[in-house]
Amino acid sequence: MATLMQDAIFSIDSMQLSSGATLPNCKLAVRTHGKLNADKSNAILFPGFLGGAPEALEIWIGEGRPLDPEKYFIILPGQFGIPPSSSPSNTDAPYNGSCFPQARISDDVIIQERMLREMFGITELQLVLGWSVGALQTYEWATRFPAMVRRMASIAGAPRPSAWTRLWLRSVIEEPLTSDPHWAGGNYTDPGALQVGKRRVGHLAALTLPPKVFYRLELWRNLGFSSVDDFVARFWEAFWLPHDANDLVLQARKAQLADPSGGGDLAVTLAGIRARAMVAALTGDAMFPPEEGEADCAAMPNAIFRHIESNSGHLGTFSLSDADREGIDRVIAEILAEDV
Amino acid sequence: MATLMQDAIFSIDSMQLSSGATLPNCKLAVRTHGKLNADKSNAILFPGFLGGAPEALEIWIGEGRPLDPEKYFIILPGQFGIPPSSSPSNTDAPYNGSCFPQARISDDVIIQERMLREMFGITELQLVLGWSVGALQTYEWATRFPAMVRRMASIAGAPRPSAWTRLWLRSVIEEPLTSDPHWAGGNYTDPGALQVGKRRVGHLAALTLPPKVFYRLELWRNLGFSSVDDFVARFWEAFWLPHDANDLVLQARKAQLADPSGGGDLAVTLAGIRARAMVAALTGDAMFPPEEGEADCAAMPNAIFRHIESNSGHLGTFSLSDADREGIDRVIAEILAEDV
Repeated sequence: MATLMQDAIFSIDSMQLSSGATLPNCKLAVRTHGKLNADKSNAILFPGFLGGAPEALEIWIGEGRPLDPEKYFIILPGQFGIPPSSSPSNTDAPYNGSCFPQARISDDVIIQERMLREMFGITELQLVLGWSVGALQTYEWATRFPAMVRRMASIAGAPRPSAWTRLWLRSVIEEPLTSDPHWAGGNYTDPGALQVGKRRVGHLAALTLPPKVFYRLELWRNLGFSSVDDFVARFWEAFWLPHDANDLVLQARKAQLADPSGGGDLAVTLAGIRARAMVAALTGDAMFPPEEGEADCAAMPNAIFRHIESNSGHLGTFSLSDADREGIDRVIAEILAEDV
Repeated sequence: MATLMQDAIFSIDSMQLSSGATLPNCKLAVRTHGKLNADKSNAILFPGFLGGAPEALEIWIGEGRPLDPEKYFIILPGQFGIPPSSSPSNTDAPYNGSCFPQARISDDVIIQERMLREMFGITELQLVLGWSVGALQTYEWATRFPAMVRRMASIAGAPRPSAWTRLWLRSVIEEPLTSDPHWAGGNYTDPGALQVGKRRVGHLAALTLPPKVFYRLELWRNLGFSSVDDFVARFWEAFWLPHDANDLVLQARKAQLADPSGGGDLAVTLAGIRARAMVAALTGDAMFPPEEGEADCAAMPNAIFRHIESNSGHLGTFSLSDADREGIDRVIAEILAEDV
């Protein structure tokens, strides 16, 4: 049976961001799969990762799978920094490019909640799940809107970035772009001119995200690449080149600033999360190692931890192998089956 | 008792490099500890790592330790790319800066051998040891001058860089420098102007070299730093800033090209190594993982493998903790005690 997929843009005249700045003509992209039922009790929210437009998550949705659009209304919301949601690259002057105000993960979550309420009348989510920057949004959701979130799943993620991950965001994403000779303080006029910087982001992501076993066993061969250089160019450069540099820098800074405690005591915040929670981590994930996920889980009153065996590390979320897909599907099914 | 330390420069009128290029007025720095005995049977050669001048290895030399200058004549040779040895930054036009010919690890070893013979009359080495780029030189030594090398130790190293390590050399060392706005094809005239690129090398080395446990347990505190940012600035930026960018790029390319088989079959080369060999690897060394060191060892006819437990990974070679120092001293003592 064909399932229903719809795209929409949620627009508001202006939004006051957490920083106090006003963002006029504010837009949030949203893609949905499935149908919202009559009592609006089958909604799942699945926010995206850094560089990941909503449609990048569709590989996890399908009939007979845990995220089944025949059963659930699955909402893939956008985030600031990824067009067509409001971003440096698509905002009119004076807030264009380098002058786009610094949004936070909390701003993403605030506009997502308003979109759910005003577009769909949704006030309850069976599950909020996400990985990486999507997990940052998931923790923010469970903290900021506890009455709405029945279950949450942080997969390959954390409530806020570790010191290592902040260094990653700065040195792998931001600095290759902001040190590109064409950066010009973010006021470049030819977005194609920042190719050098964006390719370098790709090289560094290729260096730091796959676990060493991925290279030792030459698992890039399974993905159809003929050499490491080919994998670096056609997977990693290809992933980053289409993005605008200011958009990427905004996303990287947003992630660095993520903190569901709002500058308070994170342990207290985690202890206060009411949702039934799943924390799942992938073997060899350099960015969110299983040991750290286990500690996050232990800090929450109602959480379970699952270790997903993988040779892909953080990249397991790209469904690179049957094991990755089955391991992640399994934890999604498990949290959805939990009584709350 | 005070031990003898001496510095010298070995100079030759010109040298034909492996590439065929001629390097005029060729210089190799050398520092020695201890005294060469009458029959010249107590020499140990200890080549350096990327960015490491000979004196950086002195923390491993001391009375009562395995590298005991009361017993051995310990030679710390320079390498091309690290002044005062011939380098882009100290060579006269036309071979200055970006026009310095591409040297190889084999060229370092060839001039080191000539220095040992012509300066000291040494034709036998009890041990050649090194880590990282020093290990690349060690394998080259055992392959190129088998009659001279009685024992070798590769610690946190390999015969040639893996695909991941080549990507590291390119994206962590070369590209931050060659994409610096002041790079100018390597023809910059103010060497201080490349600060941005050199600091970025520091950030990326900080990101990729310490194992995750180092950050999770905040082991930088043991080294006297107050925060990750402080560690990144005062340890990592401080390490790279004094270097010349062309010198670093030369070293990085030299390492990428390292191959003791000279483009042949590495397995055959390793199977032909006659020296008694120690291959030692540190827990969590992302650059030279223990599994890879074990495979290198298995390919040699006369080698033993030792795993050194460490929380410092590749940085164990900086002697960051008692465990690192003792673990590395132990494998040096063990290979020196082997009958050959």
